[in-house]
Amino acid sequence: MIKVELISCSMKKEIKKFNIYSRIETFFKKVGLNPENGDVLALSGKYLAISEGRFYKLEDVVPTDEAYELAKANDGDPRIAELVLRESEAVMPSFAGIFMASVKGMLQPNAGIDKSNIKEGYVVLYPQDPNASARKIRLFVLDRYGVKVGVVVTDSRIYPTRKGTTGIAIGYSGILPIVDERGSKDLFGKKLKVTKRAIADQLATMVQPIMGESNESRPIVLIRGLSEYVVDGDVEAELSVSYEEDIYFAAIKNYLQGKFYPKKQVRAKDNARKALYQGL
Amino acid sequence: MIKVELISCSMKKEIKKFNIYSRIETFFKKVGLNPENGDVLALSGKYLAISEGRFYKLEDVVPTDEAYELAKANDGDPRIAELVLRESEAVMPSFAGIFMASVKGMLQPNAGIDKSNIKEGYVVLYPQDPNASARKIRLFVLDRYGVKVGVVVTDSRIYPTRKGTTGIAIGYSGILPIVDERGSKDLFGKKLKVTKRAIADQLATMVQPIMGESNESRPIVLIRGLSEYVVDGDVEAELSVSYEEDIYFAAIKNYLQGKFYPKKQVRAKDNARKALYQGL
Repeated sequence: MIKVELISCSMKKEIKKFNIYSRIETFFKKVGLNPENGDVLALSGKYLAISEGRFYKLEDVVPTDEAYELAKANDGDPRIAELVLRESEAVMPSFAGIFMASVKGMLQPNAGIDKSNIKEGYVVLYPQDPNASARKIRLFVLDRYGVKVGVVVTDSRIYPTRKGTTGIAIGYSGILPIVDERGSKDLFGKKLKVTKRAIADQLATMVQPIMGESNESRPIVLIRGLSEYVVDGDVEAELSVSYEEDIYFAAIKNYLQGKFYPKKQVRAKDNARKALYQGL
Repeated sequence: MIKVELISCSMKKEIKKFNIYSRIETFFKKVGLNPENGDVLALSGKYLAISEGRFYKLEDVVPTDEAYELAKANDGDPRIAELVLRESEAVMPSFAGIFMASVKGMLQPNAGIDKSNIKEGYVVLYPQDPNASARKIRLFVLDRYGVKVGVVVTDSRIYPTRKGTTGIAIGYSGILPIVDERGSKDLFGKKLKVTKRAIADQLATMVQPIMGESNESRPIVLIRGLSEYVVDGDVEAELSVSYEEDIYFAAIKNYLQGKFYPKKQVRAKDNARKALYQGL
């Protein structure tokens, strides 16, 4: 038998910069236990960002001309466009005011910038350097409690053609972010050819039913029992793939070009598809 | 304090149709407990599919002309193309032999068809009707143990521009598949405007670090402590969005059209981009 435990508690809401380390101590006091070797500590990226003072009063943001242009392409807010441009390598307008941004090579709507769970009129960005923050928290736990834990910083994400959000790791330390199963064997001894498991993202998602999204205020979750994914130190890994290697980009390009089967469905759906690829 | 437990154990590998209900009884005997009201039972979609005999010997599959055409567009196997066409509403070729298929409105590479963890030369499809199977399992648990549990059927998925797989629910019963937070209040009493939480997918992902992908053989995981998402009966919900309403399709279309900021990066990346949208 294998058993994994997820443990959390309510924390007070934060309205200005605060000391994340003291809150982690508070967390362990409130749940009534100490961290152990092999635990993973999952932290809400937004909570961490607020601790770092990474929020803006929206009316203080002065958009550049390029931000105005981007916002116009998309019916969006030029001040959000400005922040998204600052926070990402590249942005493409989507619709309904959403800017699809590439952050460290990964698509994320609005570069993770969010208006919820912060004071009215403010927005929260991602933490400055989530991997560095995760590392500092890992080292704090080692120093304060003498144990080696993994740390994962979480955010929400949306899957194409699917309603609702699941989780993503925007930062991590002391864990295996990805496990490459290529070469390992399946139940029948056959070598697996393509499977990689996004462990960091799985850990970030597994705490979401507990963290919630609205006023649950459980920004820290302890994961106990998955020490096989906890490592001593940091594992550098490239977690993104380029647009050119992405199976969705290639498929959507083919869709827009009319390479779509069964062909009789193409005909039935042609008007909707033509409206999408008009002008290409 | 809130505590959630994930409990599992190894099960024997299966090479032909089997009785899923007797395996569920075996599971509870092996982990040494009985299900309780509010538990969620997560089952590997592949395990369930094998129990239903939903596998094919690849050499027995006779491709149609359209399957040959689809396979050619993509350097793929015509027999896989044939099965993907049978299993999905629509297919677009991606690359490297991957067919991006729409299954119940949701994009899934190769319609979930997989060669791993089955006999050499065979492929496993999705279960025939995963929601119906989930419901039958829920009713079996009610009948056999007298308790109301939720059931979720899991598979792996890939997020755009990201390496590695996380989880998705391909079927469910007795749970809230999605929680719409629109109208609920954040920590500051502001109404949330857009957030929906894909609870079924979160539950499907949270068991993945335990289930594994290769030879762990833990196809059943019990989730205890999340009874807030368990309901008595079935909740019908539309979990997919159309391509026309999807924020990725719109953004990728804009990318292919050159609507991409900051503009100086567009110039630097123009060759790669042009190669992608050639012919559009």
